[in-house]
Amino acid sequence: MSKSIKLAILGLGTVGTGVVNLINDNLDELKRRSGRDIVITEVGTRRQRDDIDPNIIQNSDLMATAASDNADIVIELIGGTTLAKELIMHAIKHGKHVVTANKALLAEHGNEIFALAEANNVHVAYEAAVAGGIPIIKVMREALAANRVDWLAGIINGTGNFIMTEMRDKGRPFADVLLEAQELGYAEADPTFDVEGIDAAHKLALLASIAFGIPLQFDKVYCEGIRNITLQDVSYAEELGYRIKHVGFAVRRDANEGNDESAGIELRVHPTLIPQDALLANVNGVKNAVLVNSHPLGQTLYYGDGAGAGATASAVMADVMDLVRVLNTNDPNNPGNNGHHVPHLAFVPEQLSDTPILRAEQMITGYYLRVHAYDNPGVLADITRILSDAGINIDAILQKPAHKLGQVPVIILTLPVVESQMNLAIEKIEKLETITDKVVRIRLDELA
Amino acid sequence: MSKSIKLAILGLGTVGTGVVNLINDNLDELKRRSGRDIVITEVGTRRQRDDIDPNIIQNSDLMATAASDNADIVIELIGGTTLAKELIMHAIKHGKHVVTANKALLAEHGNEIFALAEANNVHVAYEAAVAGGIPIIKVMREALAANRVDWLAGIINGTGNFIMTEMRDKGRPFADVLLEAQELGYAEADPTFDVEGIDAAHKLALLASIAFGIPLQFDKVYCEGIRNITLQDVSYAEELGYRIKHVGFAVRRDANEGNDESAGIELRVHPTLIPQDALLANVNGVKNAVLVNSHPLGQTLYYGDGAGAGATASAVMADVMDLVRVLNTNDPNNPGNNGHHVPHLAFVPEQLSDTPILRAEQMITGYYLRVHAYDNPGVLADITRILSDAGINIDAILQKPAHKLGQVPVIILTLPVVESQMNLAIEKIEKLETITDKVVRIRLDELA
Repeated sequence: MSKSIKLAILGLGTVGTGVVNLINDNLDELKRRSGRDIVITEVGTRRQRDDIDPNIIQNSDLMATAASDNADIVIELIGGTTLAKELIMHAIKHGKHVVTANKALLAEHGNEIFALAEANNVHVAYEAAVAGGIPIIKVMREALAANRVDWLAGIINGTGNFIMTEMRDKGRPFADVLLEAQELGYAEADPTFDVEGIDAAHKLALLASIAFGIPLQFDKVYCEGIRNITLQDVSYAEELGYRIKHVGFAVRRDANEGNDESAGIELRVHPTLIPQDALLANVNGVKNAVLVNSHPLGQTLYYGDGAGAGATASAVMADVMDLVRVLNTNDPNNPGNNGHHVPHLAFVPEQLSDTPILRAEQMITGYYLRVHAYDNPGVLADITRILSDAGINIDAILQKPAHKLGQVPVIILTLPVVESQMNLAIEKIEKLETITDKVVRIRLDELA
Repeated sequence: MSKSIKLAILGLGTVGTGVVNLINDNLDELKRRSGRDIVITEVGTRRQRDDIDPNIIQNSDLMATAASDNADIVIELIGGTTLAKELIMHAIKHGKHVVTANKALLAEHGNEIFALAEANNVHVAYEAAVAGGIPIIKVMREALAANRVDWLAGIINGTGNFIMTEMRDKGRPFADVLLEAQELGYAEADPTFDVEGIDAAHKLALLASIAFGIPLQFDKVYCEGIRNITLQDVSYAEELGYRIKHVGFAVRRDANEGNDESAGIELRVHPTLIPQDALLANVNGVKNAVLVNSHPLGQTLYYGDGAGAGATASAVMADVMDLVRVLNTNDPNNPGNNGHHVPHLAFVPEQLSDTPILRAEQMITGYYLRVHAYDNPGVLADITRILSDAGINIDAILQKPAHKLGQVPVIILTLPVVESQMNLAIEKIEKLETITDKVVRIRLDELA
């Protein structure tokens, strides 16, 4: 067996320990596949650990580990966007290839980090940053490389999906399930990143870049969480053949009837009604899945564990195995073999495009509307006339029996419509005297 | 943009035309991702075509095209195992990288073809050979490279899955649906390869090699088709919470209680009851999906179109895009950059293992049994005693009302059992005087 591949790991939390365990468990598999020995030479950890192989150097000076002469590849697993960024930039400047699972860091600072990596002829690999163990980065960058991606839709936050699944399966309200998710360790003490959709938005920014060949633009992702989803809406959706999931969408829109303003990319994360019989609707609990619609391939779906030590370690080590091949070719004029490497954002850097990201008002989706009205014979006619005047097509209506003081909930599903038109229509509906409450709206997608 | 990548295509049938169309449609995408121009320089075709770009040479001498100086990469899309083999061997000997969609050829002659490729320092890529556009070869070889695969289960023949889906959804008998599949062009005039499971067995042989690091052993795949599945069994299975699908399984079995004979790999393709709520059970029509269970990743699933011009062209061109990176590194001492390349069968050749393939009698699965008996109070006791004496655990029993001449169908689901034990038990059951027919058996897997 030829020269060993030397790894330094920054951070020995759940995922770092998962990587150590994977290498212990599967060393034979790793060697048989790569033809090389894989050795952890050093770990950067503030707290000394006595359960680690004594041949591995434990260094409390993380910056030193990031630039260690003992490492070909540095694996960053400490998380966060401050120290982690410094460590990665430091490793790159010292000619190390980097593997990271840090979605927040890359979504917010990836353009800068990847540019530095290219300038230093090293690679930053990040399979574990999106959808955990599901190899969606490799699939999008390599397996779909000959396709033109039209759109993708992903359940990419396990905590959010666990909450939506429990609400539907057991009829438990949001707050109750959130507490359980925290007890189970799925959700953080501060659950904002999960329930407000920020974590999903980080991942969506990465997916959209590699799908469409655009720079990372996390700040332009429209983001709506699941906090306001009620059991009532979950149950009306089911009655109409839909399921509410928290989904991230990246959609390419061509110019509509010569209006160049309408061309661009929608980046949005929000609760969405999707058809019950879609595979994506049957992705339950903490599982993740990404559905990609591309030409000429059509729809493909990728499903698995989106988090957890084992799944994340699997993705981290897949990146390491790819880098082993880069390290195998010793071209002295091109030590990083950049010509050979998959571009960081799937497209070669000078080919990234400045396709605009659309504003929320420009986005096109179907809608679920829940309108509360006095039980008055004219009310349905009023609502449907307003929608029809705004050019909004109704796909289904469900009028429920009056539930309190003569008020009836009316549920309306619409075909896709530009959001600005829907805003105007809702404004008008809310002004009707027969309407008793704000209109509840949730987006809807047929995934067709 | 640097030097063009030159492609020669052998065969301009549905898939060959699909590749030409893909390159026309998505040339911008291909260039933006690869940083190279991609040009078809020559096609080998017996019949001259006037709808092809006149800059492309049409050559009726296929052997000449396979060795053409106009090509960096030769794409074999003529199918079959005789001429296709000669063409590929010829191309390899002339230093061409090869891309093929030919599952039968690789399953039967892959060991020889890959050895020749390694000796000639070129690569033979075959993403399109298994599950069409689903990137299962890349996923298994690269994305799961750090995992130890425990088992995989795949719906890898679209025609068979279309037939099983129609039988269940519409209550139509096998022969009727097969005729429609032939009319729709899903099934060949001679449907043997599809309905007897041979096509699925070809694909399973390839998947098993890259999962476990064993040579290709198509001749050892146990293979059972769907011809004998009746609507009665489809409906009883549904009643018990299961769905019958035609599934290929590759399963690693460790030695059982120190019995080394029981260790090995099961390679089998057969109709299988799987739980209705499993994602795999909801893969319908001509769609394919592969479920992989590996450590430490756990279960992941890959879903999409398993056939068709667009899906196959997508996989063929993904291979081309990978080879572009090999061609990008011009190390004069190692023109094929073999150190850099993913091994053909995922594991480096000298690390392939001789793990035995288990015989059918050694395989372990659950069973669905349909027994027809005279409606006699003692019959159920007799059957269950025979099963219990053979150490076979019953998971569920469904006794249906008598349907003719006082005969009752009894449906029994068992927990996993070694096939040889089940054979003995069934032999005994069939000898009972109260039993009126051969026992119908279908394997069952919980996919857990």
